[in-house]
Amino acid sequence: MTAVSDITVGAYLLRRLRELDIEHVFGVPGDYNLGFLDLVVDFPGLEWIGTCNELDAGYAADGYGRLRGAAAVVTTFGVGELSAVNAIAGSYAESVPVLAITGMPATAVAAAGTPVHHTLMDGEYDHFGRMFAEVTVARATLTAQNAPAEIDRVLTALRRHRKPVHLNLPTDVVLAKVPEPAAPLPAADAPTDPALLAAFRAAAARLLDDARTVTVLAGHEADRHGLRAPLADLLAAAPVRAAVYSTGKGLVDEGAPGFAGVYTGEFSAKPARVAVEDADCLVLAGAPVTDTVTGGFSHRFPAGRTIELRPGRATVGGAEFAGVTMTDALAALAELVSGLGLPEPAGYGESPVPAARPDRGALDGPLTQDALWAAVGDFLPAGDVLVAEQGTAFFGAQELPLPRDARFVGQPMWGSIGYTLPATLGTQLAAPDRRSVLVIGDGSLQLTAQELGSMARYGLAPVVVVLNNDGYTVERAIHGATAPYNDIAAWNYTALPAAFGAGDHCVTRRVTTVAELLDAFRLAAATPDRMVLIEAVLPRDDAPELLTALAGRFAAQNDYGE
Amino acid sequence: MTAVSDITVGAYLLRRLRELDIEHVFGVPGDYNLGFLDLVVDFPGLEWIGTCNELDAGYAADGYGRLRGAAAVVTTFGVGELSAVNAIAGSYAESVPVLAITGMPATAVAAAGTPVHHTLMDGEYDHFGRMFAEVTVARATLTAQNAPAEIDRVLTALRRHRKPVHLNLPTDVVLAKVPEPAAPLPAADAPTDPALLAAFRAAAARLLDDARTVTVLAGHEADRHGLRAPLADLLAAAPVRAAVYSTGKGLVDEGAPGFAGVYTGEFSAKPARVAVEDADCLVLAGAPVTDTVTGGFSHRFPAGRTIELRPGRATVGGAEFAGVTMTDALAALAELVSGLGLPEPAGYGESPVPAARPDRGALDGPLTQDALWAAVGDFLPAGDVLVAEQGTAFFGAQELPLPRDARFVGQPMWGSIGYTLPATLGTQLAAPDRRSVLVIGDGSLQLTAQELGSMARYGLAPVVVVLNNDGYTVERAIHGATAPYNDIAAWNYTALPAAFGAGDHCVTRRVTTVAELLDAFRLAAATPDRMVLIEAVLPRDDAPELLTALAGRFAAQNDYGE
Repeated sequence: MTAVSDITVGAYLLRRLRELDIEHVFGVPGDYNLGFLDLVVDFPGLEWIGTCNELDAGYAADGYGRLRGAAAVVTTFGVGELSAVNAIAGSYAESVPVLAITGMPATAVAAAGTPVHHTLMDGEYDHFGRMFAEVTVARATLTAQNAPAEIDRVLTALRRHRKPVHLNLPTDVVLAKVPEPAAPLPAADAPTDPALLAAFRAAAARLLDDARTVTVLAGHEADRHGLRAPLADLLAAAPVRAAVYSTGKGLVDEGAPGFAGVYTGEFSAKPARVAVEDADCLVLAGAPVTDTVTGGFSHRFPAGRTIELRPGRATVGGAEFAGVTMTDALAALAELVSGLGLPEPAGYGESPVPAARPDRGALDGPLTQDALWAAVGDFLPAGDVLVAEQGTAFFGAQELPLPRDARFVGQPMWGSIGYTLPATLGTQLAAPDRRSVLVIGDGSLQLTAQELGSMARYGLAPVVVVLNNDGYTVERAIHGATAPYNDIAAWNYTALPAAFGAGDHCVTRRVTTVAELLDAFRLAAATPDRMVLIEAVLPRDDAPELLTALAGRFAAQNDYGE
Repeated sequence: MTAVSDITVGAYLLRRLRELDIEHVFGVPGDYNLGFLDLVVDFPGLEWIGTCNELDAGYAADGYGRLRGAAAVVTTFGVGELSAVNAIAGSYAESVPVLAITGMPATAVAAAGTPVHHTLMDGEYDHFGRMFAEVTVARATLTAQNAPAEIDRVLTALRRHRKPVHLNLPTDVVLAKVPEPAAPLPAADAPTDPALLAAFRAAAARLLDDARTVTVLAGHEADRHGLRAPLADLLAAAPVRAAVYSTGKGLVDEGAPGFAGVYTGEFSAKPARVAVEDADCLVLAGAPVTDTVTGGFSHRFPAGRTIELRPGRATVGGAEFAGVTMTDALAALAELVSGLGLPEPAGYGESPVPAARPDRGALDGPLTQDALWAAVGDFLPAGDVLVAEQGTAFFGAQELPLPRDARFVGQPMWGSIGYTLPATLGTQLAAPDRRSVLVIGDGSLQLTAQELGSMARYGLAPVVVVLNNDGYTVERAIHGATAPYNDIAAWNYTALPAAFGAGDHCVTRRVTTVAELLDAFRLAAATPDRMVLIEAVLPRDDAPELLTALAGRFAAQNDYGE
């Protein structure tokens, strides 16, 4: 019996998405999701964003989720979901909350193992669900009976873990009736048990007791779990120093007096290195150790004097406190350090950013990486979103001081080339009041270039800087500097937007000198309501210093046997 | 101790690929596969084909494997292999022998669970291998010790099952030394045990005993398992009729006297329907029942009077003979039917192709699907490869008579839109003496368009016909005829090749009338050494009749609940 307050399963799910602040749903239509898409396009407060393919939809959702705290992507069974699964795995590796919704054949068709299109023709409908189980923290196949409970369970896991989740939505379940939600979804984190928090605090107090220098090192989990404000509070409470991993760039105001720069192990600039390695107490805030962020595991943390905060647990010295949230732990630490009477450590209040910008060379000279990044730095306005593709762009961006309230998006751990272009479609939609500025190499752009057309189709106005350095420069730096496999086709980058239907909505410039680049950025600043694509022609093997250093580490790690 | 005849694991693998007639290896470089790529680019008889992204590499390998009988694609760990996995799943669903090689982090790095880039950062290195296990028939992670045995086991499975397989190749294993192969790989199929074959033959003889009409219906497995010659022998042995599923198009000479056309259940033309449904004995040759090929399960096979041949087993009436190869079974059947004194059935020797081509309308009139296919039919030379994208193109191509010795490539069961464009890169490389002619819709082309650039980069000269009908016409036919999710960005298709760097190597034409289309095909015929891209502007909802009929079936199967 259908009660008056019953709604469809599809509508139930879409209501929950709106609760998560989702306003855009990404994806590609397919015959197993068309019924659900009917609901999406009609749902108040939601907009359907069709991308050219499903991998791009997944990447766009990831970019969106980084700024919004949640995102959703809809694909069809088999062909669609498997095209997107690399993006979902990236969201898992980098802790981005993305809901992947698969439009699935009707319940009875699946139960009978019918050999319909988009299956492996073996009668087995669980192959792809098992594949998604490898890269998600929760998943379910919805039925008319389980839908409300399973949707809520899965979305609660997404919120708690800030990692992707997966729902199979069979065609016949979309319009089945269920009771409307009785209550909002539970909060992401329950407050920490007071006794547990007190125990953590006591342990931290003992470790901090004789500390004269305290540094917090923040990583990507601090971003995804919303620690921007608690981190700022900690820095305001006492002369604590703050460094960030490359994955945490933008998390701490780079103009704050305690900011010490980006820490990348032995490749760090001195202020960050001293702040992290010589601290009497080092607080690791959502900053797990991985190869990319530590300069190939060349980090040195003060032994026995670290407090590590991770989602759902804290460690003080060696002792673990399972169940302490990072937010509560940071608040406790802020209170503790404020009572320590910490002196200002050496370098406190001094910007770690070099007083002199990188030399941009003569105005009519050829472009270099240094000149490029100096110009990007001059161009970036406060509050913008800098998106840097893994490769020369990501490593170049590390040295760049971010303006106030800027956001930084990169994917250094999963490192799937081509990610950032569709991700920029997502960031620009997620934060329409911030301009997204993408810097991407030519090799990477070729993987996912068609979303330039989607940006124009939806009237977005990001700035896209294409580094044309004639191939996979990041791979050349690691191995095969002149090998043919690191070559790519020579595209005409400034012709792409028009070919993709951007028409007048996109302005393009190809620049080969410093003066031309500066002109192009002036044009971009003067054209805030249109897309601007700048092709910057760079020497083939000119790579940022950090990349060159790290590439050597990676080559050693890979043991090519030469 | 390294013996004189020892070779590297990488070289061992590449030798085996050459044995399988592989001359091109597809993929994208990444730091975990660069050492192996060094070997690929230097290996005699092999060429590295770099595509723009990994999904495209997988699709290209699939197209190559359909014509060559084997193909290989190389990606890097995590990011690369997961981007390609949809293509591998497609190869599984449609039985195409593709070897997926993943360049993996070094053995010690993986054994320690080190959190390096391109992993999920959880210390677990088996996630992606398990995902590949869902869509392959054999897989292995190579070590210096197991490499020869595991490579041979996995490639033997590829040959036997004509399905994809997967190898993880850690960076440190590439140059490890192993003994060179002592013998060639075993043949795909061992000959059928004579006693078993005799039992099959006796059962078949009983079923054929009073048959006056015998029809063979061939599907995709007949193509992949090399049954073209045995099928021709069967047709030559007696007045047997032959029909094909859409997946078997091109498998039987459409000019052969017994050819009855394409069978698609109730949507078949009469000759095919009568031949299949009214046969006294129906031989199903590698023709499993799936929704697309049977018009949504509307097939009617003569009850109790079918002989079904599948890879590795045959069924006569209800009795199964496990271990009978399809080749041996067809040879036995050819001998049996030659002794039956079968009369020529009605319609035997008459071409099932309508005497009149579809009406192409006035020369200066607007293009229609009918006019388009009439023109494609006039253009296609003998021996060409017609590649038809799932959507209007695939269904339109079904009605088209194929010239002698032509090949047909489509993907109706997996049905991953965008597949055919990279697949055409593969077919053109696999069969350089045949010209590949691709017909693809605009919506599909947008998924994988960038491989137009790769075709030009490698100097290939296919003909690409883009059906510009303003969106996903196949989805509109199923559901959401005017829904915004079936819209796509309006690209400038003829501008694409130049933007992708094709330069003078590609000639383009945009045609809106029949006369312009005929002109464009004349140009294509006169330009055999360059790519030709023809954008054919078609009415938005003009779909081939077969698609319209089948779309209704799919909508019902999906139970959208309206």
